[in-house]
Amino acid sequence: MDTLSSQANIERAIAAAKVLLGDRVSTAPTVREQHGKDLTWNEGAPPDAVAFVKATDEVQALVKICAHEQVPIIPFGAGTSLEGHFTAPKGGICLDLSGMNRIIEVNSEDQDCRVEAGVTRKTINAHLRDQGLMFPIDPGADATIGGMASTRASGTNAVRYGTMRENVMGLTVVLADGRVIKTGTRARKSSSGYDLTRLFVGAEGTLGVITEVQLKLHGIPEAASAGVCVFPSIEACCRTAIETIQMGIPIARIELVDSEHVKAINAYSKLSMTVAPTLFVEFHGTTAGVAEQAARFGEIAAGNGGGTFQWATQEEERLKLWQARHDAFWATKAMKPGKQETSATDVCVPISKLAECVVETQKDLAANDIYGPIIGHVGDGNFHVVLFCDPANADEVKRVKAVYDRMINRALAAGGTCTGEHGIGSGKRDYLRREHGEGVAVMRQIKLALDPFNLMNPGKNAGP
Amino acid sequence: MDTLSSQANIERAIAAAKVLLGDRVSTAPTVREQHGKDLTWNEGAPPDAVAFVKATDEVQALVKICAHEQVPIIPFGAGTSLEGHFTAPKGGICLDLSGMNRIIEVNSEDQDCRVEAGVTRKTINAHLRDQGLMFPIDPGADATIGGMASTRASGTNAVRYGTMRENVMGLTVVLADGRVIKTGTRARKSSSGYDLTRLFVGAEGTLGVITEVQLKLHGIPEAASAGVCVFPSIEACCRTAIETIQMGIPIARIELVDSEHVKAINAYSKLSMTVAPTLFVEFHGTTAGVAEQAARFGEIAAGNGGGTFQWATQEEERLKLWQARHDAFWATKAMKPGKQETSATDVCVPISKLAECVVETQKDLAANDIYGPIIGHVGDGNFHVVLFCDPANADEVKRVKAVYDRMINRALAAGGTCTGEHGIGSGKRDYLRREHGEGVAVMRQIKLALDPFNLMNPGKNAGP
Repeated sequence: MDTLSSQANIERAIAAAKVLLGDRVSTAPTVREQHGKDLTWNEGAPPDAVAFVKATDEVQALVKICAHEQVPIIPFGAGTSLEGHFTAPKGGICLDLSGMNRIIEVNSEDQDCRVEAGVTRKTINAHLRDQGLMFPIDPGADATIGGMASTRASGTNAVRYGTMRENVMGLTVVLADGRVIKTGTRARKSSSGYDLTRLFVGAEGTLGVITEVQLKLHGIPEAASAGVCVFPSIEACCRTAIETIQMGIPIARIELVDSEHVKAINAYSKLSMTVAPTLFVEFHGTTAGVAEQAARFGEIAAGNGGGTFQWATQEEERLKLWQARHDAFWATKAMKPGKQETSATDVCVPISKLAECVVETQKDLAANDIYGPIIGHVGDGNFHVVLFCDPANADEVKRVKAVYDRMINRALAAGGTCTGEHGIGSGKRDYLRREHGEGVAVMRQIKLALDPFNLMNPGKNAGP
Repeated sequence: MDTLSSQANIERAIAAAKVLLGDRVSTAPTVREQHGKDLTWNEGAPPDAVAFVKATDEVQALVKICAHEQVPIIPFGAGTSLEGHFTAPKGGICLDLSGMNRIIEVNSEDQDCRVEAGVTRKTINAHLRDQGLMFPIDPGADATIGGMASTRASGTNAVRYGTMRENVMGLTVVLADGRVIKTGTRARKSSSGYDLTRLFVGAEGTLGVITEVQLKLHGIPEAASAGVCVFPSIEACCRTAIETIQMGIPIARIELVDSEHVKAINAYSKLSMTVAPTLFVEFHGTTAGVAEQAARFGEIAAGNGGGTFQWATQEEERLKLWQARHDAFWATKAMKPGKQETSATDVCVPISKLAECVVETQKDLAANDIYGPIIGHVGDGNFHVVLFCDPANADEVKRVKAVYDRMINRALAAGGTCTGEHGIGSGKRDYLRREHGEGVAVMRQIKLALDPFNLMNPGKNAGP
């Protein structure tokens, strides 16, 4: 199922694109490079051109041009994805949607909004703050909403507020043949027809280009309180998370940071946190509710050997605490200046299996002398390993890849998934097949029904 | 895209099914009739035979037989759906899954379970109670989980706990060609591949037969309190719901019952409730949390002219209260013994538009002299009208259909959907097209990719 485009096709498509967009179509090598490679070990390949689009009808026109010339189309948001989602292995035109950054409408009574795909989550939240509303999905990076929808992103708040799967109400999508459809409605629920919204959410641009997103919003909580607590072991952290959820405490965030990560955070953020498995937590609610949640959680933590809590209730303190957590990724990079970080990967397992999966992974890392600090959205059973190695050291590269492979197999054997929130991209296609078996054939049937010439982000996710 | 089966094909398929299932295949007219027509005005048509299946591999074998003979397959659960979902307009074999009623496993630490499709929601809850867990989705009827997944059901608790869309984690599905796939995992979230789970949820058996379901469970709350309060108007009820949600009160149920329904409930359940627009509410949480929620809600209600609350905190009282609410449907039937109730239909709109849509519908009913009591899951913007008329009165039938049509158009114009929880079935196919436009063509492409001969529940939802 290879695309049929020749160099002549590509040149004609670029020429036609330039007629429409003028100097918003670039073939400059630096622009193409920057749009063809992420930060990880996943192979990069530059597109033939990058088109900086401003509106759905421009996307539609470019898709029609590309369909006519059989040229691949790769959508691009903020470029913060981590699984080779936007490389162009078959060339083609990259559609950079970051200029589609209008907040189209906010319906505060209904707690929803409609935005263009290139709006980032921080932009939305800055816009909403005065109305007492927030968009809680927080993947760390200031990603675009279109990218977050396409990769089914989530982050630290998912345990309370869900992922993009639960928070996207509807979409505008440009299909491979240039048709534009609108999925979903502004109703909170519907039994009307196939759930096209959730088909495009997570399809990573392989079924169409998302140009607008209708989002659920949430009220900014009346009170919030965040805290940090150390534990004697990873198991004690996970046991605390399980009991918290079993008790029905509506915790907003519960993040595991392993000792290696704490060391890195201390060095990077000039802190002096105790080096031990640590939980960062946050509660949202009424003032009395937050106090009750924190007290109950404190009892659970103490029962599992947790130390004294360090609480932050003022917004400034809370932001500082979460900034340290979010800087963990950069902090680990600073720890190993000689090594290149090669993968920031994630798996997700049933919460009862989390401790075992994390501890086994730590042992495997140690046994193979690999630096790989771990953080986890422990309320969801989701954890991340940042893997480092020296690309020039073939043996180390081999060992890293083997640890990575075993980690994913362990997650699948535990009834989990090969990725909780990063996606498949070009990097995890083997694991997609391992996880879903015959299901991948069904995904492929859907892909080819909607995009028979495989023009939409080829080589990614379930597509050919 | 008609099926190609002749009478000879059907007879061969039935004969082959009998070889496999013996007397669990019935061609008795009463059995066929009972499996071919729901309680509403939607046209019925009996299948050629009903097969009472016991296991996924039996479903697979029957689907292969039907595929070979080009005979339609219609899945059937408890028969409680309301939009002609299980009629057999092209004949075929009905697969009655009610005998697939095993609870396969419960993982209490992870708060999930796996069940066969024929298990009913009440059976699950009876099984879970001792473990402090519950499955909250409550469509009123004691529907099967497979049927609830297929129609994307919800009910009174959806405002807090979500619908089947949010609570199904994975499925086992038999496809039109006899392949069996397992979708989803036991992880709480995943970015791995296309969301096949949510594609089959709500597809009403047109893409495959669901035989097993992995479900999210929830802890039984420590405390619960339910109450009833009358208001001066529908608008005051809706305004109360909007403010409750804006305040972030995690209300578990908030149900609107209009005056006509209150009259019917009083007569049927021998109560003496004040005849006025009424809210039935319920709060779940800790003892202190429930008290705080109820107090805050009380202030909002009072601010909108609500009367004195009648509270029920003991489980027995609460069940009695909700029984009265759930009996509303039967109560309305008892009010008009001369008339046949013709449709129990629903729409769902953004909550800010709910009051307007309900009031306009009430006016339209009154202007056309139609008896149509209204109840609503007001936290979701979802409301139901039970429409009555005398089928022998052609003019009345015409007026009912016109009111029904205007109600749906009003919902669509308000940015809502033609059905919040009942589904499309054979009854709302025109409205599916009206709501989704070109999106229906995309649904059809997916349908034909997975079921090219249109054997899976033909004539329903987005299928031909």
